[in-house]
Amino acid sequence: MAKEITPRSENYSQWYNDLVVKADLAEQSAVRGCMVIKPYGYAIWEKMQAVLDAKFKKSGVQNAYFPLFIPKSFFSKEAEHVAGFAKECAVVTHHRLMNDPEGKGVVVDPDARLEEELIVRPTSETIIWSVYKNWIKSWRDLPILCNQWCNVVRWEMRTRPFLRTAEFLWQEGHTAHSSAAEAQAKAVEMVGVYADFARNTMALPVIVGHKSPNERFAGALDTLTIEAMMQDGKALQAGTSHFLGQNFAKSFDVKYTDSEGKEQYVWATSWGVSTRLMGALIMAHGDDNGLVLPPELAPIQVVMVPIYKTDEERAAILSKFAGIKQKLEELGISVKVDDRDTLRPGFKFAEWELKGVPVRLAMGARDLAAGTVELARRDTLEKGTHEAEGIESYIQQLLREIQQNIYDKALAKRDSHIRKCDSWEEFKEEIKKGGFLLCHWDGTAETEQAIKDETKATIRCIPVDSCVCEEEGVDIYSGKPSKARVVFGIAY
Amino acid sequence: MAKEITPRSENYSQWYNDLVVKADLAEQSAVRGCMVIKPYGYAIWEKMQAVLDAKFKKSGVQNAYFPLFIPKSFFSKEAEHVAGFAKECAVVTHHRLMNDPEGKGVVVDPDARLEEELIVRPTSETIIWSVYKNWIKSWRDLPILCNQWCNVVRWEMRTRPFLRTAEFLWQEGHTAHSSAAEAQAKAVEMVGVYADFARNTMALPVIVGHKSPNERFAGALDTLTIEAMMQDGKALQAGTSHFLGQNFAKSFDVKYTDSEGKEQYVWATSWGVSTRLMGALIMAHGDDNGLVLPPELAPIQVVMVPIYKTDEERAAILSKFAGIKQKLEELGISVKVDDRDTLRPGFKFAEWELKGVPVRLAMGARDLAAGTVELARRDTLEKGTHEAEGIESYIQQLLREIQQNIYDKALAKRDSHIRKCDSWEEFKEEIKKGGFLLCHWDGTAETEQAIKDETKATIRCIPVDSCVCEEEGVDIYSGKPSKARVVFGIAY
Repeated sequence: MAKEITPRSENYSQWYNDLVVKADLAEQSAVRGCMVIKPYGYAIWEKMQAVLDAKFKKSGVQNAYFPLFIPKSFFSKEAEHVAGFAKECAVVTHHRLMNDPEGKGVVVDPDARLEEELIVRPTSETIIWSVYKNWIKSWRDLPILCNQWCNVVRWEMRTRPFLRTAEFLWQEGHTAHSSAAEAQAKAVEMVGVYADFARNTMALPVIVGHKSPNERFAGALDTLTIEAMMQDGKALQAGTSHFLGQNFAKSFDVKYTDSEGKEQYVWATSWGVSTRLMGALIMAHGDDNGLVLPPELAPIQVVMVPIYKTDEERAAILSKFAGIKQKLEELGISVKVDDRDTLRPGFKFAEWELKGVPVRLAMGARDLAAGTVELARRDTLEKGTHEAEGIESYIQQLLREIQQNIYDKALAKRDSHIRKCDSWEEFKEEIKKGGFLLCHWDGTAETEQAIKDETKATIRCIPVDSCVCEEEGVDIYSGKPSKARVVFGIAY
Repeated sequence: MAKEITPRSENYSQWYNDLVVKADLAEQSAVRGCMVIKPYGYAIWEKMQAVLDAKFKKSGVQNAYFPLFIPKSFFSKEAEHVAGFAKECAVVTHHRLMNDPEGKGVVVDPDARLEEELIVRPTSETIIWSVYKNWIKSWRDLPILCNQWCNVVRWEMRTRPFLRTAEFLWQEGHTAHSSAAEAQAKAVEMVGVYADFARNTMALPVIVGHKSPNERFAGALDTLTIEAMMQDGKALQAGTSHFLGQNFAKSFDVKYTDSEGKEQYVWATSWGVSTRLMGALIMAHGDDNGLVLPPELAPIQVVMVPIYKTDEERAAILSKFAGIKQKLEELGISVKVDDRDTLRPGFKFAEWELKGVPVRLAMGARDLAAGTVELARRDTLEKGTHEAEGIESYIQQLLREIQQNIYDKALAKRDSHIRKCDSWEEFKEEIKKGGFLLCHWDGTAETEQAIKDETKATIRCIPVDSCVCEEEGVDIYSGKPSKARVVFGIAY
């Protein structure tokens, strides 16, 4: 291998960091906690955006754009929201620099202090509801279904690329409705969009469920989540959808006149996924050779490497490749011919493996003579020799198979790390091994907090899309009665 | 009209502001100088992005993402760049809020002062070249061709929606090359991409040229620009492409080893267009009834309005519309059927006219019986009755015609406001009438500044894509010799 990656078994966390950097996905910048997303990483994010954006639009959502800055006073308007978001954030206090009177570069101009400080948005409920107030008068103006793709900033103390960064990219949907039921249905619909995206595009098995009150979004009445499990058994919250009740409408005085002429507060949802999904993608599928990309998200789905000794062989192989490339592209498959002549084939193989390209074709002089091509699958690392003629339709089918296989593998891995647990002693031991524990919980915040304090485990969700959990029992910690099991895990 | 727009002849500036708000493109937010881009406005921006992004990718450019924040010290590294960009900007000084000890909302935590202030990017040359330093070792690493779509902030004192806002959206391309010639060629290529986009997608005639040294980007050796003329005769700089020489490479110490093993500084370009293009689009084509959108950028290309008295008529017309809609969509044309039954047809006509939809179809009971449909063109406001059968291919052709007509109209308007001017007395009078004046200039910054001080006119560009200007003469102001005419105008 050209670039050494720490094996997962040795140090999973270092493996992740190695992969992010060595597969050219992202790197740290000169600004604390802010990453640079490199072209290869960004190309994956663009594919995620395209699929999600189409799903949003299909559900009637329109994109818009709201200001980066939020006046400080807005954070005081929704009491719970303040506590959750107004703490660690980037605060703009001045609007001008000037030359240092002592000649040492530039300094902040003390005369350019803002009357009111501005906060770089950590999330946009407050600024958006201050705008929705102008848009909503009557029931005819509802629903409003807006989304924005943007950057947000949360001043995290400990950061990791993609998983937790000071600045990150995301989409945030904000909808306004005339009834609680309609808003709740929208929140459910959008978590469904996320679950579908995770499963079918990212090949990522997720559990859909409600957050416990302790883990809810600040200002929400209900938070729905998709929870994934990484290969080290830790949980990763991959997307959330919130039913916000009338909290923001009341804070920003947003009312509509209903069809009977009566004034009512508006009902709200918000929902988002972020570049954190990149972290989930890497950690769910990668192996010790590098990234393993589901074909649906691979910027390059098929890479072709010529193996040659003479210029003549090179030309002949590249000509064959050009024909295959054209046919693959006609099928909508993205292809790269790696014709760099300063690198050995073995180096190229390792590099594309590191970058997770699903299918690799190699062709040498012998293949050329025999009319064959060597095909390697990234997900299984299997290699085989195939007839070059007609390989395109085989690859088209194979990409579907690989997408499915990556999902199945992740699902099997996850399911082997989900187990029921019925005693507190057992819980304390089992949770150390990672994975999800299905346990009875008495429904109180106190019990949840006590379990978290002793074990770091949190309730990842109260599942809704699986019925294995609906059975009566007693809380593992308090011994009080419980109507269903919930999912415990230790989270990223 | 449901929503009154100030006529252009009465107050052009107010006409523009009315149009922005009443066509639902954008509005002011609670944050000074920051606008909200509403869904209809954002949909136009998304179409612009899609066309430009495809052109960038075709030219080998990849997207990436760099941090929002730039350490203050970075601005001191490139001397001219400091003067140009480090003045009016948003400065982050703290990273935490806390509850006011006196119970009045939240206040900035004085203990959370950053060691070094961060500037919200006004443009990203400095942060990107600090990153490129890590990416570039050898000539094999070059060229680097990156672009990012992002938000930037410049603390403008006087703002206008789209034209000049504190926060705006843009793309900024940043390329790194091993030779001056290659970088210069890239800067020329990209201004060509912009000119092509302006002309063929925005239907906006532009003059391509070099900026005079006074008007160059801070830190550039050469700035290429596309200059458009608005209906009031004022100039609008719509996009720029800069050859940055080795200035940023030297400031951030970015060197590569050439094929002979010698270390060399890297050559750079940067180029960008922003949501300012939305302003250009509105002002170049709009009329007293509202927006006029070129079909290439219209989120809705065809709107259909049913005219009915009974539910039966309504159902029959909507059924006809559904058939036409399907066929139009198969041709890749975007269609909206306005079936709102709380609004009169006249109101709908005015609304879609205001929003600039290129083609409107209306069908009433008589049309239904006769198998006809009424078609109205937004660009000419012409109406006519057509056979409903086969209308789709007529519309497909018509949309191309409208695109061309909008361009031709803008071109004729612009060309009628371009004239040569050879004396200073004449210049002072003529420039008050607006438009572009083609004048001889002696090439000195002093003369340019003197002309600007007396008349507010600036050199918009030294044109490169038209030879009408290459003739010898004498400077209108100084009387010194000149080899070519340049374009003077008063700019937005």
